[in-house]
Amino acid sequence: MTSSRPSLYLAGPDVFEPDAAARFAAMKRICAKHGAVGLSPLDGPAPERPDRDAALAIFDRNVELIRQSNAVVANVTPFRGPSADVGTALEIGIALALRRPAFGYSRAPHLYPAKVQAGRSTSTKQADAQAFAADGFAIEDFGLFDNLMIVGAIERSGGALFFGEEAAHAVAPGAGLDLFETSVAAAVRHLRSDRQAQQ
Amino acid sequence: MTSSRPSLYLAGPDVFEPDAAARFAAMKRICAKHGAVGLSPLDGPAPERPDRDAALAIFDRNVELIRQSNAVVANVTPFRGPSADVGTALEIGIALALRRPAFGYSRAPHLYPAKVQAGRSTSTKQADAQAFAADGFAIEDFGLFDNLMIVGAIERSGGALFFGEEAAHAVAPGAGLDLFETSVAAAVRHLRSDRQAQQ
Repeated sequence: MTSSRPSLYLAGPDVFEPDAAARFAAMKRICAKHGAVGLSPLDGPAPERPDRDAALAIFDRNVELIRQSNAVVANVTPFRGPSADVGTALEIGIALALRRPAFGYSRAPHLYPAKVQAGRSTSTKQADAQAFAADGFAIEDFGLFDNLMIVGAIERSGGALFFGEEAAHAVAPGAGLDLFETSVAAAVRHLRSDRQAQQ
Repeated sequence: MTSSRPSLYLAGPDVFEPDAAARFAAMKRICAKHGAVGLSPLDGPAPERPDRDAALAIFDRNVELIRQSNAVVANVTPFRGPSADVGTALEIGIALALRRPAFGYSRAPHLYPAKVQAGRSTSTKQADAQAFAADGFAIEDFGLFDNLMIVGAIERSGGALFFGEEAAHAVAPGAGLDLFETSVAAAVRHLRSDRQAQQ
């Protein structure tokens, strides 16, 4: 990055918002305000046909943008279930392995068990105190907001997690830009202090 | 790998099965039958207390096992929503970036839009033919079974995807070992042909 502005890859289910272009334009303005460049999954050409080849072209471009970035800022608010969007989770894994710090933010501050129980009606607590959801699978409970791989990847990558104070259980179009800005500011601070340490 | 047996990291929500130890023992036997070694997320010591430090220790061990592996075999059957387990998705991202081929299997052969609609009551189709779910977000529709990042990572890593023929919409304890075996056989064939090509 030397004298140039740090680049942040913008990961999240925001790409599925009804007006995703406006969402990413707003996110890029927030990045610019903090002296960074936002790299958006929407930056490339729109697919001509929504087929497998178009999907792979988007995949390749996203991976390339993560490689070009100095850090990833990821919306890990629950999406269509108790956990973060899987595409976002996969991108955090790529970031970790490529040694990019990953910063995450979630509108929902709840711990994972509360989020599983919000979506399903019943869970049973067994003799060994391990809780199971209605689907028959154990409910991971390490006092974390999501699967430990998400929390571990963000922490071990050198990034950080930020939570909203709302009782929001899921993503909502247009929401969460405040938390996004907090995460961008933290990522920029981290990258600048990292750079100073290397000088 | 030279003359030793290939190692396969076993990714999936199988770790949350009520009898996860038996599940992974069965998966390791299947790996051995195909001349491979199964590396299980349960191989390490059980956590003493289910706290953040224990979670990070498990995270570190899983990442190390992926590094040690020659390929990843991942259960990408829908888990608590229309998509694969997020921990599994994140591990596929790590595998991709570390250049390990990732093989995936899903009991549910359905395309992603059908899985989103199975879980939610309504979706609206707008004028531009883009369908939206009840949550207000677009339903990705590239003719794929899950988020394009999952499919792209598996394909670009050199791996392959296998589907069940059942009308299964989600994971179920004990299910899917047949598909797992198909994936293991494919991973071993891939690694052996890769090795031959390098000789």
